[in-house]
Amino acid sequence: MNEELARHHLSLIQGQRPAVHCLTNTVVQSLTANMLLAIGAIPSMSSDITEVADFTARSQALLINLGTLDPGRKDAIQAAITSAKNNNIPWILDPVLIDRAPARLAYAQELIGQAPAIIRGNAGEIAALGSDPKSLAQSSQSIVAVTGAIDFVTDGHRESELRVGHDLMSRVTGIGCAGTAAIAAFCAVVTDADYFDAVVSGLYILGKSGENAARKAPGPGAFAATILDEVYFTSQSSSTEGSPK
Amino acid sequence: MNEELARHHLSLIQGQRPAVHCLTNTVVQSLTANMLLAIGAIPSMSSDITEVADFTARSQALLINLGTLDPGRKDAIQAAITSAKNNNIPWILDPVLIDRAPARLAYAQELIGQAPAIIRGNAGEIAALGSDPKSLAQSSQSIVAVTGAIDFVTDGHRESELRVGHDLMSRVTGIGCAGTAAIAAFCAVVTDADYFDAVVSGLYILGKSGENAARKAPGPGAFAATILDEVYFTSQSSSTEGSPK
Amino acid sequence: MNEELARHHLSLIQGQRPAVHCLTNTVVQSLTANMLLAIGAIPSMSSDITEVADFTARSQALLINLGTLDPGRKDAIQAAITSAKNNNIPWILDPVLIDRAPARLAYAQELIGQAPAIIRGNAGEIAALGSDPKSLAQSSQSIVAVTGAIDFVTDGHRESELRVGHDLMSRVTGIGCAGTAAIAAFCAVVTDADYFDAVVSGLYILGKSGENAARKAPGPGAFAATILDEVYFTSQSSSTEGSPK
Repeated sequence: MNEELARHHLSLIQGQRPAVHCLTNTVVQSLTANMLLAIGAIPSMSSDITEVADFTARSQALLINLGTLDPGRKDAIQAAITSAKNNNIPWILDPVLIDRAPARLAYAQELIGQAPAIIRGNAGEIAALGSDPKSLAQSSQSIVAVTGAIDFVTDGHRESELRVGHDLMSRVTGIGCAGTAAIAAFCAVVTDADYFDAVVSGLYILGKSGENAARKAPGPGAFAATILDEVYFTSQSSSTEGSPK
Repeated sequence: MNEELARHHLSLIQGQRPAVHCLTNTVVQSLTANMLLAIGAIPSMSSDITEVADFTARSQALLINLGTLDPGRKDAIQAAITSAKNNNIPWILDPVLIDRAPARLAYAQELIGQAPAIIRGNAGEIAALGSDPKSLAQSSQSIVAVTGAIDFVTDGHRESELRVGHDLMSRVTGIGCAGTAAIAAFCAVVTDADYFDAVVSGLYILGKSGENAARKAPGPGAFAATILDEVYFTSQSSSTEGSPK
Repeated sequence: MNEELARHHLSLIQGQRPAVHCLTNTVVQSLTANMLLAIGAIPSMSSDITEVADFTARSQALLINLGTLDPGRKDAIQAAITSAKNNNIPWILDPVLIDRAPARLAYAQELIGQAPAIIRGNAGEIAALGSDPKSLAQSSQSIVAVTGAIDFVTDGHRESELRVGHDLMSRVTGIGCAGTAAIAAFCAVVTDADYFDAVVSGLYILGKSGENAARKAPGPGAFAATILDEVYFTSQSSSTEGSPK
């Protein structure tokens, strides 16, 4: 059951307060940091080449989001990925809008060659990578999550479909990006054998929180605040569960 | 009538979902993206020189906002404007705080030499450009919008005054910047002969949404969310009007 | 009494509308600008080397926050500090997360050598600087504010403790950073002999606003908007006090 497992993962996050270093686009940094704080994780977001390896090394997961790029940020992304590999920390790729510029698509493919633990995109972004999700998962050795009206997760062998969420989630900038950060926090508290479950849990909590928020907040402005509240309330109510047996 | 025409323009945005590429300051990127989503447009915000021309070419309008600058961003701005011209896409200039630094004023004047379709600023910013709005419109061949307690729009021949909006709009960072992005979306769905009307429509919808939001949210924190909700509700209720005859 | 003095300082801000230039991290720029606007100050945030000295020179206080760095931003920070010194403007340092990367710690120490008027950090950040707050205040000739469940302010001789605030303030990104910006605005309207009091006033208003907001908004999403509203309402109600006798 998604609900029970997701709440168990949430309780682990409350107990461990994992640090998630985020090299993410400047549009969504605030919402992403607030999503991580709501869920119980600790965000950091430096893209300075002199310190990004240290920040990554002292984190439990790394998020790479391609929404806004520049040459310095690309250098920082490489330093962070190398640090993540050296420190055995999972990293997760959000290939934002790679269907809009050939240079960005090529860059995403170069990064996928460095074996992200998870790739999360919408249907257009995943399709731009040139294969179906299952084949992509197999060739990249990554878990692939395709989000939209229905979320789909595959590791190339297992598959899971989630029918959660609400249309308003697409009317607030960065909900998907912040969701990828949340997935990173879920992966931060399990071993790699459980990443598939952790991804499903992260998407489940985000989607359910979106459904609850839409009942209370009919417009996108109030919705953005309310989904954070819903994530926070669910996290708080999961923290009493205690550690795993 | 402003109301009827503005709703007609809004219905066009709902039908066409124009993409608006924004080279805007990092302070207001989130609010700007959310304003565009609320109004029914699709934002992107990359300033990477390797991809900004492609993002612009696949958009229907381009926003240039000078609120935060750096050398890389200036290169990206030039690449985006060139792409907009090559692809016959309107671009709109928001010369934020050019009255505060001579280097920024000189840069704004250089950009105005490249014929923006629209220039939108407050009274101090437009005055810093060295002439009255009407003369500026004539010399630059741009539509000039001066926003404040009363909004004023001129193309050098026609003039329009709007008495809409609320004081709280000046207590939330980026409402003016997000409004310029909204104007870009309105221009994206009409031909250049109708840019003047589109600018008036954009300012009208923003101002009326601000008035409605202020009735519901007396402080600037809640107001920022509520004005997005108001823009969204007006957009949704305009989408049933159908396409133009 | 904190309350009376803080409201007096707030009334000065309403009367003078000080400009505060902020070189702050991209995650918290929007909240920081909104906090300054709510309190009655005027924010600007350019980090362009060609204009940052002019922006600083035309401001009444300067905020330096290390949350996100890159080489260009470091050049801008130096230019801004030099301009602040040349124009006799107080500057305030927020050494965000210096306990997470040695390069960032070294950079903070280099900046402290340039005599900030105020240093504001949490316990971990201040401890990373290698001495207790009182010794740090004496060696740096700065006022040191250590914020947390209890806030502590010292100039190396005087000390003040504030028991204000709420746990939710740590669940919204940038509340501490925005609070440092608020402190800058308080220092902008007094002479340097009164910086100690101004820092206490700033922390008091922020903490009380947080307590009030938490009563109305139990989750971090709504809380972020509500604390801005509370700061704004307190500022507005303080503006009738008039100028100091």
